[in-house]
Amino acid sequence: MRPSGRSLNQMRDVVIETGVTKHAEGSCLIRMGDTHVLCTASIEEKPPSFLRNTGLGWVTAEYGMLPRATNTRNRREAAAGKQSGRTQEIQRLIGRALRAGVDRSALGERQITVDCDVLQADGGTRCASITGGWVALRLAVNKLLKTGTIVSDPIIDHVAAVSCGIYGGQPVLDLDYAEDSTAGTDGNFILTGSRRLIEVQMSAEGATFSRGEMIELLDLAEAGSEALVAAQKAALA
Amino acid sequence: MRPSGRSLNQMRDVVIETGVTKHAEGSCLIRMGDTHVLCTASIEEKPPSFLRNTGLGWVTAEYGMLPRATNTRNRREAAAGKQSGRTQEIQRLIGRALRAGVDRSALGERQITVDCDVLQADGGTRCASITGGWVALRLAVNKLLKTGTIVSDPIIDHVAAVSCGIYGGQPVLDLDYAEDSTAGTDGNFILTGSRRLIEVQMSAEGATFSRGEMIELLDLAEAGSEALVAAQKAALA
Amino acid sequence: MRPSGRSLNQMRDVVIETGVTKHAEGSCLIRMGDTHVLCTASIEEKPPSFLRNTGLGWVTAEYGMLPRATNTRNRREAAAGKQSGRTQEIQRLIGRALRAGVDRSALGERQITVDCDVLQADGGTRCASITGGWVALRLAVNKLLKTGTIVSDPIIDHVAAVSCGIYGGQPVLDLDYAEDSTAGTDGNFILTGSRRLIEVQMSAEGATFSRGEMIELLDLAEAGSEALVAAQKAALA
Amino acid sequence: MRPSGRSLNQMRDVVIETGVTKHAEGSCLIRMGDTHVLCTASIEEKPPSFLRNTGLGWVTAEYGMLPRATNTRNRREAAAGKQSGRTQEIQRLIGRALRAGVDRSALGERQITVDCDVLQADGGTRCASITGGWVALRLAVNKLLKTGTIVSDPIIDHVAAVSCGIYGGQPVLDLDYAEDSTAGTDGNFILTGSRRLIEVQMSAEGATFSRGEMIELLDLAEAGSEALVAAQKAALA
Amino acid sequence: MRPSGRSLNQMRDVVIETGVTKHAEGSCLIRMGDTHVLCTASIEEKPPSFLRNTGLGWVTAEYGMLPRATNTRNRREAAAGKQSGRTQEIQRLIGRALRAGVDRSALGERQITVDCDVLQADGGTRCASITGGWVALRLAVNKLLKTGTIVSDPIIDHVAAVSCGIYGGQPVLDLDYAEDSTAGTDGNFILTGSRRLIEVQMSAEGATFSRGEMIELLDLAEAGSEALVAAQKAALA
Amino acid sequence: MRPSGRSLNQMRDVVIETGVTKHAEGSCLIRMGDTHVLCTASIEEKPPSFLRNTGLGWVTAEYGMLPRATNTRNRREAAAGKQSGRTQEIQRLIGRALRAGVDRSALGERQITVDCDVLQADGGTRCASITGGWVALRLAVNKLLKTGTIVSDPIIDHVAAVSCGIYGGQPVLDLDYAEDSTAGTDGNFILTGSRRLIEVQMSAEGATFSRGEMIELLDLAEAGSEALVAAQKAALA
Repeated sequence: MRPSGRSLNQMRDVVIETGVTKHAEGSCLIRMGDTHVLCTASIEEKPPSFLRNTGLGWVTAEYGMLPRATNTRNRREAAAGKQSGRTQEIQRLIGRALRAGVDRSALGERQITVDCDVLQADGGTRCASITGGWVALRLAVNKLLKTGTIVSDPIIDHVAAVSCGIYGGQPVLDLDYAEDSTAGTDGNFILTGSRRLIEVQMSAEGATFSRGEMIELLDLAEAGSEALVAAQKAALA
Repeated sequence: MRPSGRSLNQMRDVVIETGVTKHAEGSCLIRMGDTHVLCTASIEEKPPSFLRNTGLGWVTAEYGMLPRATNTRNRREAAAGKQSGRTQEIQRLIGRALRAGVDRSALGERQITVDCDVLQADGGTRCASITGGWVALRLAVNKLLKTGTIVSDPIIDHVAAVSCGIYGGQPVLDLDYAEDSTAGTDGNFILTGSRRLIEVQMSAEGATFSRGEMIELLDLAEAGSEALVAAQKAALA
Repeated sequence: MRPSGRSLNQMRDVVIETGVTKHAEGSCLIRMGDTHVLCTASIEEKPPSFLRNTGLGWVTAEYGMLPRATNTRNRREAAAGKQSGRTQEIQRLIGRALRAGVDRSALGERQITVDCDVLQADGGTRCASITGGWVALRLAVNKLLKTGTIVSDPIIDHVAAVSCGIYGGQPVLDLDYAEDSTAGTDGNFILTGSRRLIEVQMSAEGATFSRGEMIELLDLAEAGSEALVAAQKAALA
Repeated sequence: MRPSGRSLNQMRDVVIETGVTKHAEGSCLIRMGDTHVLCTASIEEKPPSFLRNTGLGWVTAEYGMLPRATNTRNRREAAAGKQSGRTQEIQRLIGRALRAGVDRSALGERQITVDCDVLQADGGTRCASITGGWVALRLAVNKLLKTGTIVSDPIIDHVAAVSCGIYGGQPVLDLDYAEDSTAGTDGNFILTGSRRLIEVQMSAEGATFSRGEMIELLDLAEAGSEALVAAQKAALA
Repeated sequence: MRPSGRSLNQMRDVVIETGVTKHAEGSCLIRMGDTHVLCTASIEEKPPSFLRNTGLGWVTAEYGMLPRATNTRNRREAAAGKQSGRTQEIQRLIGRALRAGVDRSALGERQITVDCDVLQADGGTRCASITGGWVALRLAVNKLLKTGTIVSDPIIDHVAAVSCGIYGGQPVLDLDYAEDSTAGTDGNFILTGSRRLIEVQMSAEGATFSRGEMIELLDLAEAGSEALVAAQKAALA
Repeated sequence: MRPSGRSLNQMRDVVIETGVTKHAEGSCLIRMGDTHVLCTASIEEKPPSFLRNTGLGWVTAEYGMLPRATNTRNRREAAAGKQSGRTQEIQRLIGRALRAGVDRSALGERQITVDCDVLQADGGTRCASITGGWVALRLAVNKLLKTGTIVSDPIIDHVAAVSCGIYGGQPVLDLDYAEDSTAGTDGNFILTGSRRLIEVQMSAEGATFSRGEMIELLDLAEAGSEALVAAQKAALA
């Protein structure tokens, strides 16, 4: 039995609300159960210096967590004077995932920065950031298309991410914090709207896993990502 | 005429929503027009080291702004590796203001940290942080009283803050960004529920000001703070 | 009774000695009682980058305190690897105050940096820094005028600062450390030579204050600033 | 055709030389082709503070690269003042992988730090670090067993890592730099001596990948890790 | 001919004024020509942690230069966020030199920190810091003896430092900035009151030097240090 | 008797192996007894900015020590976030020494960075770094000559360094760690191939020294440097 009473392949409710801040070119608030992430996409009409005169654009991401997004207060990273290794790992992952769904040549020499700030955390914040970050990115690109700044759509496909893991010996979909903190194996899967894989990260935390378990988690993830892509479409409709 | 069409002594609409995060002991989202600040209060059952064995508690504050809370994206302070002088100045002000409304002996040897994170900015973020931060603090203290952890209420009075300034040669109440960025003089006033002054900060930005103008701004601030205290009461009712 | 035996409206002796270092374009050592601050003004024939091609100049300030300027040794900020929030707050204040007395268009595209280094501290170091810093600035500008680098004087008026506070229930002028560390309310007032206000900062430290007390402190400050402007004139004569 | 002329499932030559430094409790120099990593294991008879009085030990890792380990010189991280996100990501991975092969209760309240310093890089440095780091760890633990400091062996199994990727549309084993920098998909697989999985990281870099390709890379990795475990055994014999 | 018109073995005028700050246990302002250094000695009744329970005390030093101590303004190290390599090298040298003249067992478990802050620089600041720093240290130790905190004098001997160099092909004593910046070889010599050597640092800057030149510079330094020790005695008399 | 059984004027065995990394323009591994330093020289076809358009080149050095190069593990400087004062002092010394043997005009507007990384330490790491660093520099310059990038050899002479000290009251050559950590006086001498002096650093660590002892150490150093220059020649032959 899962702590939340969900069945093994049941995701939490996903709600994506768009247009939540007046300044950003694209924005949404994604809620996967009690995990709430505010995602904004900011366009800068100048690429990073390593892309100057290449005709290519860039999509990058930054991730943060409010100090009291979690059960006990964490030290504010700005006060600590540096981003933790975990934060850097996550924001590198988000940026890589979103770039995999973008034709950087069609985007042209500009940069879009996707900020993912966790207002409340209950497991799966990096996956929610990717799924919500893609919506913010989509909205910002829509604005570029609408104003005619770019003419061909650089978004190739949806990008969505979901976690799976082995909890109590059973493969389960979309771990919440209670599961995540005790799961034997933990995985994050990032997929496109057409079920191609962008990134797979599986990690033994307490117990190693078999080839068979790896396949089972992938099965769950494929189903989960389909539901997330549907939620993205609904939010943008 | 003010850009927003408000009259000279008219504040923006103030909405304070409490209980907005599931983890914090006290929390609210305060909206002063388009300025939105998420405030949480976190209790730690241990005072800072300089207060050990004094019987006194501490209230402190931290302030942050999401990178795209503003019209153009600001660099994330955690990525920059330090908090700006402005951020430090503001969070020191918030902490000092809230402590002025607390009997630290009644609070006892514990610390409450009030985090004020600006989700969207349109001028007056430090004032909104103080007004909202006080509500989060009040709620966290209520929890301590309810569980019997403390027996006598350490909250002495309401604390609320409002900005005033001289815009277009006229004293105006509650500056929004359009006014703030061009005002000749700019002031922040922090008052208690009984109209005692906690902090006055007036600053010439472009034009010096007279003794008479100083008094006029104080008049506006007294009226404004009364409305904010009423909003605090309504939110807590 | 004040610890120093001074009457309520009596300032400490002010001595401003000019030309104290051979390298700086302008310099002075200001002594307000036992508070001694070395002020230098350095001209750079290039404005900060945000003012390039605007025709405007800039005046900025930096503040520091020698580790043993105080009763017990403080950690050297260069060794600690950062300036404290207090230091940043003070140097931002000094810069803002001095700029309020300068016509940046007449100054032209150059930058003057005023360094205020406290050799010995006994309360009121930020006020002494502003009053002395203005003298250093005046001397540096004189040099620009004398060499014909600029033709019209960018200095609009004197700028001087003085602290006041409520000590033992009484409004007093020019707090020394013994008073400052126990005062209920503490204020800094920055005025021009023609008694216009540049900045007012009043802060409850232990006890809130009334509107009437605020006015009384302003009265003291106006008298004090007049004496300081006289001392500036005497030093420059 | 692979740039090195190797067949698709052919690893580079692996040589592990033990006892290469006189100070460390365990050490080796691992060479996977032109990738050379010096690995040392240092025992500290005190666990990290979060494990005090738990009876559990800790294994952690740090990773570094000499500035000219690569084709063009990289800035020294100590001079830059911080470890890059990449470095932190890698050292967290190494530590996590090694801990998966250790019974922390049998290790007892002590810490072993495995330092992996890349002397020369030609792709696959994180995998070589894990494979070599395990040998250094094994040697350090042997010393603890030999002196009777611990009585039961905390090492559960071998830990070895290998990279695979899709290069020129073909799944290949053990990418060197020429392949790594142009591969469409890139993966790192960490396995135990009994072919259990510890960590799987697959990432699309330019082209997404299918479920089938994922399985093919896993097949290659299983074969590769077997060869690496054999090399570990030979080095320790 | 030397730029200052001094003869080859002529030092600049040395003036040491004691008791220049009211807070420090020992202090002096040393002027070697236009090089002015404020030296303070601060006693802490607790040794650094590595000396706890050893019966030994510690003497350490910190060095700083005001931003406009030099001909063109240098960036403030506190603002830059770190001490330069040069600063660290100098303060390590000062501390080492002063410790060589102290019986740390007679000093007992306490620490004396000597701060040397350059108010105006014209070459030879590290030597002036050592010579003046020793006077501040002597005064602080006198206070410990006078109050009976320690009973036997831990100061073994005077410590003084002087620079020499090869300027225009000639060995000269006590280089000022004009000489220092163009000298072929540059040396700092630290001696005791009884002409024992504490530290010799000679460095080719442009031209290597011979064994004979090394001896000649030592001759000059011995004479110079004698005059400095006399100045120390005069200041303390 | 010396701990190693060496006679007073006996150096440790010196072995210099060249071409140890495939990427660097010049490289060697120098072993002075149990002190092992990996030295690489990297050419950049661009001088530092302060030399632009001067026709002069630059040689600089960086120094590092692997965390477990020593008997007990040291904290990794990259993780600590800064280079220690000792590290900075050493790398400044290495750079200065190597530049003394180079005609920067013949080198032309380019920069060579010599990295010295200590793999194993047993005293004398800075001297080994200089002696080995010169070999790496020589090899990199040879490459520039061979390709015709420069036509006249900028290397003026050999540069080699050796430590001496007073151990057990006796002057000894080439201190190992056991001696270095207890020597009364400790010196580093850097000489050219023609016995000219580049740098002399002698420091009392526990006992001051006489003029006569200074000369004795110089005698030892001259003999030692001759042997080191011979080893450099052998390695390059």
